[in-house]
Amino acid sequence: MADHGYVVSRYIFATSNINLPNFFKKSRWPKVWSKSANWIGYVAVSNDEISKRLGRRDIVVAWRGTVTRLEWIADLMDFLKPISSNKIPCPDSTVKVESGFLDLYTDKDVNCRFCKFSAREQILTEVKRLLEIYQLEELSLTITGHSLGSALAILSAYDIVETGLNVLQDSRAVPVSVFSFSRPRVGNVRFKERMEVLGVKVLRVVNVHDIVPKSPGLFFNENVPLLLMKMAERLPWSYSHVGVELSLDHKNSPFLKETGDLSCAHNLEALLHLLDGYHGQGHRFVLASGRDPALVNKATDFLKDHYLVPPYWRQYENKGMVRNEDGRWMQPERPKLDDQPEDTHRYLKQLGLASHH
Amino acid sequence: MADHGYVVSRYIFATSNINLPNFFKKSRWPKVWSKSANWIGYVAVSNDEISKRLGRRDIVVAWRGTVTRLEWIADLMDFLKPISSNKIPCPDSTVKVESGFLDLYTDKDVNCRFCKFSAREQILTEVKRLLEIYQLEELSLTITGHSLGSALAILSAYDIVETGLNVLQDSRAVPVSVFSFSRPRVGNVRFKERMEVLGVKVLRVVNVHDIVPKSPGLFFNENVPLLLMKMAERLPWSYSHVGVELSLDHKNSPFLKETGDLSCAHNLEALLHLLDGYHGQGHRFVLASGRDPALVNKATDFLKDHYLVPPYWRQYENKGMVRNEDGRWMQPERPKLDDQPEDTHRYLKQLGLASHH
Repeated sequence: MADHGYVVSRYIFATSNINLPNFFKKSRWPKVWSKSANWIGYVAVSNDEISKRLGRRDIVVAWRGTVTRLEWIADLMDFLKPISSNKIPCPDSTVKVESGFLDLYTDKDVNCRFCKFSAREQILTEVKRLLEIYQLEELSLTITGHSLGSALAILSAYDIVETGLNVLQDSRAVPVSVFSFSRPRVGNVRFKERMEVLGVKVLRVVNVHDIVPKSPGLFFNENVPLLLMKMAERLPWSYSHVGVELSLDHKNSPFLKETGDLSCAHNLEALLHLLDGYHGQGHRFVLASGRDPALVNKATDFLKDHYLVPPYWRQYENKGMVRNEDGRWMQPERPKLDDQPEDTHRYLKQLGLASHH
Repeated sequence: MADHGYVVSRYIFATSNINLPNFFKKSRWPKVWSKSANWIGYVAVSNDEISKRLGRRDIVVAWRGTVTRLEWIADLMDFLKPISSNKIPCPDSTVKVESGFLDLYTDKDVNCRFCKFSAREQILTEVKRLLEIYQLEELSLTITGHSLGSALAILSAYDIVETGLNVLQDSRAVPVSVFSFSRPRVGNVRFKERMEVLGVKVLRVVNVHDIVPKSPGLFFNENVPLLLMKMAERLPWSYSHVGVELSLDHKNSPFLKETGDLSCAHNLEALLHLLDGYHGQGHRFVLASGRDPALVNKATDFLKDHYLVPPYWRQYENKGMVRNEDGRWMQPERPKLDDQPEDTHRYLKQLGLASHH
């Protein structure tokens, strides 16, 4: 991030003890990493140089996606529930979102160092803290994410605006924008309408061949028609996308193979490559920024073979095994992460979220 | 090698243009590595310190095996041919070896920089050169190899002694020993008898669960019984192992999983681990040298899970991709290897092998 003029101010963790078994890969090695916590994003702030260039101090919330696996899509219970049922304020109980995303955003595990606060509490308190620090400056909030992370981007953008967190003491409202990539559907039509009322700007970048933005609904639909039918009896069937769509097609890139591999069509690096070559509907594909096409093959086999970039090349040397002084091969100790910042409680109180601590 | 007191004096290459499609993985990238040559071993010499400790200057010929794949076994045509048919001197035309090993040892490709001399020519000339340099010292020749490489170890040991290469100008015969690991059968009973007449000392270390030492024959047998029967009509069926067997059993190691995976039973690191814990038939398995058991999992999933060593951990970071000055990801240039040493011709002449150059 430092290369790009941003400084990470806090990493966000979520509990993996939720009813979504394929969302996270659980650590096999409790010594190396917690079994119940997963890194799920970070908050960062633009440095002075970039802020000057942008004309404002930009606070970024970035939510990670899953890298290549698509199994988590099958975990979506295709079950909408009122956003207010997980204690996120909402004036309208017909505003509903997919329950798995909502749980991931709000659940916590008091016995876990990294997720004793929910992802929601972690980002709300961090954004609050940063807005206080920079309150005298021109400010913006940019929220981004890929795949699963883009669903969390939408939820957190909603939350920040609905709770009024983005309104400063002098009553200025900090503008909130979402750049989402390969996003599944998150909520119902009411949720979409509420986002529009709140004035959150949303861009939704997708590859037209990606199946994830057609989920929930399509995917579930195809796999368990019987169960779907049973649920359809009880539930309104009303998922709706939020925001302006920018749809790209990997068949327009001369760099990429013809492939039916769904994880290629869903891949973030490939999508960023398509964005780099896109100059409007019907225009020729020309790489604009010099973004390296080799990045596409980091976690796919999507680049044409004659570019001579190995497929799935992203990996740690010896899977992170290193030799210690005795010449023995072992997993190194992970650098210790700080516990939750000590001032989290103070900000939770300010936000009216501290009752149960 | 330098860590262990040996200095590599020459790398050996073989042509992959032989009738054994699974012996080598062909390079996809001709710029990075030759399509027709493969590194197949090296010659090394003990340094002064180690030579003093050993009481002699030790010349080592080490032949590489295939890393994990076992497909090459299916390439063995199970076809014995007289060793003399590939112009290796032999007083008896009934001495026969497996034709694939023989071809790999003697074939060359005049259009290829690295394999315009055969593996045979490369090692004979190098051994000749080293024996000349150290002729006034006490000397020994140690030849080793794993799997496919151990077949070449046997062939080259035979060749060196049969041609009298190990006899110095003062008529001293340098002793030749072979340490072979996971070796398939190489030749017929006559070949075995000839090796004994020549006085080559051979130790054959095997895991009893490994199928490779039971090949050729068993493997072929199981897969293509019809063809086997046709060939059995024409050919004497007389493969025979050479040397003293030291047979180990991976079920005796408390470090290893119960597994039926054939590539585990054939793995060199696992075999060295078994050797380290072996203290004689019926004795308890105790690691003797402190050899790191983590090495077993370099290219297998053989260590019990509670040792927390990731399976298949040996790999280059990012598959060898590196960022150049422009920030682009690419395969680095390989360090240039020297062409064949200029004095190869001179030694070939001395060995009477230079006629066709």
